[in-house]
Amino acid sequence: MREPTHRQFERPPLLIVVSGPAGVGKDSLLQRMKERGCPFHFVVTATDRPSRPGEVNGVDYFFVTTDEFAKMLAQDELLEHAIVYGQHKGIPKRQVREALESGRDVVMRIDVQGAATIRQLAPEAVLIFLIASSEEELEQRLRARGGDSPEQLQRRIATAREEMKRLSEFDYFVVNRDGELDQAVDDTLAIISAEHCRAQPRVVSL
Amino acid sequence: MREPTHRQFERPPLLIVVSGPAGVGKDSLLQRMKERGCPFHFVVTATDRPSRPGEVNGVDYFFVTTDEFAKMLAQDELLEHAIVYGQHKGIPKRQVREALESGRDVVMRIDVQGAATIRQLAPEAVLIFLIASSEEELEQRLRARGGDSPEQLQRRIATAREEMKRLSEFDYFVVNRDGELDQAVDDTLAIISAEHCRAQPRVVSL
Repeated sequence: MREPTHRQFERPPLLIVVSGPAGVGKDSLLQRMKERGCPFHFVVTATDRPSRPGEVNGVDYFFVTTDEFAKMLAQDELLEHAIVYGQHKGIPKRQVREALESGRDVVMRIDVQGAATIRQLAPEAVLIFLIASSEEELEQRLRARGGDSPEQLQRRIATAREEMKRLSEFDYFVVNRDGELDQAVDDTLAIISAEHCRAQPRVVSL
Repeated sequence: MREPTHRQFERPPLLIVVSGPAGVGKDSLLQRMKERGCPFHFVVTATDRPSRPGEVNGVDYFFVTTDEFAKMLAQDELLEHAIVYGQHKGIPKRQVREALESGRDVVMRIDVQGAATIRQLAPEAVLIFLIASSEEELEQRLRARGGDSPEQLQRRIATAREEMKRLSEFDYFVVNRDGELDQAVDDTLAIISAEHCRAQPRVVSL
């Protein structure tokens, strides 16, 4: 009986979607998870925006031309895509599929609207909403990030407020408090561990 | 906005039920959780069986007389009760209620039939099924525990086999592999952490 029992307890790979308002710390969360050596496949987003100093192609993003992006889109190679402040971003479908087929959990960061799209494409995805502990804290982080005009900042805050209303569309929320990024990582890892213990496992097909 | 936001993220206390076949290690799991200083209320079961050497009244069990047990039952003071090998066991209702009201997560161990009863009384309870990694391993553990005749042992194995079929009635399963009790504890704690991150929190009322 040992063999069948073990097979019974095999845990299919998960598709974990980390979302939340701009400035809440999605990139920082995933970066810390990578630093901790978490054995997940972290999805690399394709974009046609220029790389910033220090960004590495294939690690931070796949940097492509606008023509190349249009081609990927035309060939249905993107799981999800969006235009963010005039620049294109998209999740390469094959990358996600191959990682799942290799048995690895897949982690992706995506905006709130994109998360809703992923939910439709893959109802069995695990959707995590990352939030600041208050609107004030989020505003401070956006200010610290710099680069926004006062009007842009106000628009981002207003957007975040609207996005918070969509919390119930997610499976979980994780609070990313100032100076407590590791707690947010712990919570995220607990969610992933717990999801692997579900009596009715989620099976993602894309 | 800070205050309402914080209130919104308050996480109601959970009722966590650890169940599984005899011999799988429910007591060991809870014991290790206590040793690690987990801040939960661990339910103390009432029983009319005699205490064994080393067992402490009010810690391991509430040891009561058969008459006292009958009185608790008559006064509807037990959340759940069972006769196990001719002896009574029951979960004092007030204890669980008071712990939840104080805001603490409540952890109880209970047999598989009892877990089904708790599910009916408290649909929002978190039900965890503890399993050995194989039937062989479970049999070895029951043998090592001693005290059973070969017939009793076979009956326990047959019961465990039947109980395994009820796995789908639970929310989660945790594998307690030989020599890996700490992993089982980690999985259990991850489940509890994750449940506190649910976008739709479970609210237990008893």
